[in-house]
Amino acid sequence: MIQHTVVFTLVHEPGSPAETAFLRTARDELAAVPGVRDFTVHRQVSVKSPGTWQFSMVFADRAAYDAYDAHPAHRAFVADRWAPEVAEFHEYDFVAWDG
Amino acid sequence: MIQHTVVFTLVHEPGSPAETAFLRTARDELAAVPGVRDFTVHRQVSVKSPGTWQFSMVFADRAAYDAYDAHPAHRAFVADRWAPEVAEFHEYDFVAWDG
Repeated sequence: MIQHTVVFTLVHEPGSPAETAFLRTARDELAAVPGVRDFTVHRQVSVKSPGTWQFSMVFADRAAYDAYDAHPAHRAFVADRWAPEVAEFHEYDFVAWDG
Repeated sequence: MIQHTVVFTLVHEPGSPAETAFLRTARDELAAVPGVRDFTVHRQVSVKSPGTWQFSMVFADRAAYDAYDAHPAHRAFVADRWAPEVAEFHEYDFVAWDG
């Protein structure tokens, strides 16, 4: 199981309709891609980091993650929405530690 | 509910006994602090970010988070283990988005 996350900041004004539209579209379109589980949108609230939002999703394995990455719906979202509307982002992927 | 996370890199060699000892001590000591729920250790595996580990824990509310931050067991861990053994870290805290 792999948890794929991204912490990011938008080019939009906080609280603006454009911000809400971006988050809702992402949730609707990305959660519908095959293999995506537990898609969530969170606010990032630590003042020690600049990011203001987080997307998180879970994949059963690496093959499911790769299929999502290559899926036309994901590619279209990245090109049409993510690239022009995201100012900065950091990706983190997590797997369980069995220690 | 607040999810408190930190992505970090240790000064220890990957796979070393010192690395394992740090992770186990953190899990044992921090998970035992009052108010801490769902303490987990994950490997960070995205090649797009340098961090190699993540701790995650959940607090019921801001008061529980603040109590953890001020707790002597947490303060002692930060001074005795975190400060000398962590090379780099980024904190992120997440709350649900109700959009």
